Amino acid sequence: MTMMNTHYGELKASYLFRTIDAKVAAFRQANPGAHLLRLGIGDVTQPLAPAVIEALHGAVVDQARAETFRGYMPEVGADFLKEAIAGYYAERGVALDPAEIFVSSGASDDLGDVLDIFARGIAVALIEPAYPAYLDANVMAGNRIVHVEAVPEEAFAPLPPAGLQADVVYLCSPNNPTGAVFSVEKLAAWVAWARAAGAIIIFDAAYEAFVQDDGVPHSIFEIPGAEECAIEVCSLSKTAGFTGTRCGWTVVPKALVRDGMNVHAMWVRNRTTKTNGISYILQRGAAAVFTPEGRAQTAAAIGIYRENARVLTEALDACGVWYCGGRNAPYVWLRVPEAFAEAGESASWTFFDTLLNDINVVGTPGVGFGTNGEGYFRLTAFGSPEDTREAARRLRELLGTR
Amino acid sequence: MTMMNTHYGELKASYLFRTIDAKVAAFRQANPGAHLLRLGIGDVTQPLAPAVIEALHGAVVDQARAETFRGYMPEVGADFLKEAIAGYYAERGVALDPAEIFVSSGASDDLGDVLDIFARGIAVALIEPAYPAYLDANVMAGNRIVHVEAVPEEAFAPLPPAGLQADVVYLCSPNNPTGAVFSVEKLAAWVAWARAAGAIIIFDAAYEAFVQDDGVPHSIFEIPGAEECAIEVCSLSKTAGFTGTRCGWTVVPKALVRDGMNVHAMWVRNRTTKTNGISYILQRGAAAVFTPEGRAQTAAAIGIYRENARVLTEALDACGVWYCGGRNAPYVWLRVPEAFAEAGESASWTFFDTLLNDINVVGTPGVGFGTNGEGYFRLTAFGSPEDTREAARRLRELLGTR
Repeated sequence: MTMMNTHYGELKASYLFRTIDAKVAAFRQANPGAHLLRLGIGDVTQPLAPAVIEALHGAVVDQARAETFRGYMPEVGADFLKEAIAGYYAERGVALDPAEIFVSSGASDDLGDVLDIFARGIAVALIEPAYPAYLDANVMAGNRIVHVEAVPEEAFAPLPPAGLQADVVYLCSPNNPTGAVFSVEKLAAWVAWARAAGAIIIFDAAYEAFVQDDGVPHSIFEIPGAEECAIEVCSLSKTAGFTGTRCGWTVVPKALVRDGMNVHAMWVRNRTTKTNGISYILQRGAAAVFTPEGRAQTAAAIGIYRENARVLTEALDACGVWYCGGRNAPYVWLRVPEAFAEAGESASWTFFDTLLNDINVVGTPGVGFGTNGEGYFRLTAFGSPEDTREAARRLRELLGTR
Repeated sequence: MTMMNTHYGELKASYLFRTIDAKVAAFRQANPGAHLLRLGIGDVTQPLAPAVIEALHGAVVDQARAETFRGYMPEVGADFLKEAIAGYYAERGVALDPAEIFVSSGASDDLGDVLDIFARGIAVALIEPAYPAYLDANVMAGNRIVHVEAVPEEAFAPLPPAGLQADVVYLCSPNNPTGAVFSVEKLAAWVAWARAAGAIIIFDAAYEAFVQDDGVPHSIFEIPGAEECAIEVCSLSKTAGFTGTRCGWTVVPKALVRDGMNVHAMWVRNRTTKTNGISYILQRGAAAVFTPEGRAQTAAAIGIYRENARVLTEALDACGVWYCGGRNAPYVWLRVPEAFAEAGESASWTFFDTLLNDINVVGTPGVGFGTNGEGYFRLTAFGSPEDTREAARRLRELLGTR
């Protein structure tokens, strides 16, 4: 018997962003004067909202004085923040007990850590192309991956395939990387499947703030019955520019029971054992997102990104390029036009190289998110408006001429 | 096969702090006017250092402006903080590559999460009495616990027992709850054992800032060869009052290899998959701890706690009560005097009740940290100086009269 987790040896090397970095570095060396337009990594560029800044400063002041100093926070999150988040859900008719909300360091932390309450070796369905950390965290846990292929015919938001057998399924809507969204009807089909199969849906709602159309849920708990089959992971990273500030939450309903075990109680026990809670300062900043000022200010930043997405998709429309996403999501997922798909080469990578070298735009090859992402390409709306407009102009020029 | 982690069903209910809370609540209801002197939970009371406050404010300002805004941080920690921590180790002659330092949310987070890189079902030695989370995190992981009893004859800092077989051992020095410290010689014996056994020491250095005597290591890496058999988890919680602010680090040396797997590389992969790093704001605040101003200011707070410990141990000395800790540690671990040990009752709990009801002092029953903690009691030095002096006065009165 080994003492180390040998499943780590089954992980594929994460070449995607390393390869991108190497190619970009080589380009920069060869072209020191060029201004690169970076629409690759999903990081935000707008600063934190003034209301959040004010709350963060206020909390720092609290930590400076013995009378207001805060030591250990509740491991599951501060009441003031959990109540603010519960209020946010209530606006959409989702009634949560604040105790069902667990404040976290962000979605990426809990998407992996939540596997701790599951047995090892379970069957986990991933809808691919997918955020690579879903796969890696489950490989580390020794779980068996059930690959579900998203296809353009279903706008990259599939229904549960006939005969699907899995203990857990990861659903991300609005989706990273495809920008696809699951309608109420599609999510209801997944909830019905999970209830019938006794499975649990891990719903990644990190991009929910980008939803603008009716009929597209922000939360899986808008679907009746989801409280008996779903865990939702969310974040302020994209909602309020917290990628480098860190705060999110996870909803584990009290009604969620599997194998006779209350899953909510398991997560309480996990958190009280494995964390000492989230920084008081960050939780004060996070709570400010949900004030009227915070809501208006973060909506303005989201508006900037939405306009970026509109500018990008307008360019693709003008050039007749197929894509999905961009309307209820910060990601635009485009099919690489035939003219760029060289025989025997990866169309995703060929397009990456062309964009980098010919128009100095950096995006992300779709194949990096799963083999069936080959032939696709991801652009993000998180760049600056200036860079995004210039990238759209160059894309029109490039795509319009081939 | 079950889909949930059934090891959660093997966890014992965590009665300790719940029972304490219930007893304190009942006391408060019966005695609404009484001023309770709380020397129970290990939480700090001194506010953050001015240098840290200034750095936190500065980082918040950075997040308010597009030009200085910071998005995703490196998952393993920011270079500016890792270099500051490496400098802190270098002062004691410990040469670490900053890449061996992983910034964390605090010790409690990584003490459990690090189990992810180990196989399930391994043998894990705990030196009891112990911080309860060690046990619970390992029960959750399905590991087999090897109980090593600390005894007063070894000043609660035992050498490796003859014939000890374990894959992992948790060592905490200065110790929670006993305040015991492992000398250079004792730690060297543990390192020699781990190297010979092919085991890994998880060294909890959360209280290292309280060490003042020569010959008591702050870090396991002061022992030659530890880089081939140890992981060190540390925190600013007690060093700089970060219990509610959150920031710490974990050292995983590049030379640590088990089962042919590089443990450092495994932890890099774990972090890059399962986190998106620690808040930029908190890392800036943490880095300020290591500036000359930060060092002087945090030392002053530690000085207040040390004086508290001195006042408490002076009272115990005057009353002839046996204890350990309090000199290089913020905890005082005392043996409940015979007069308080009622036949057939828990001496730890009887003493708790007496202190609560007779002199309105709240401490922690030693039995809460393991069965061989029965008959002992923990007091912390983290209270306010006023409360601590008053508690010492009342303890003298109570203990001197029986």
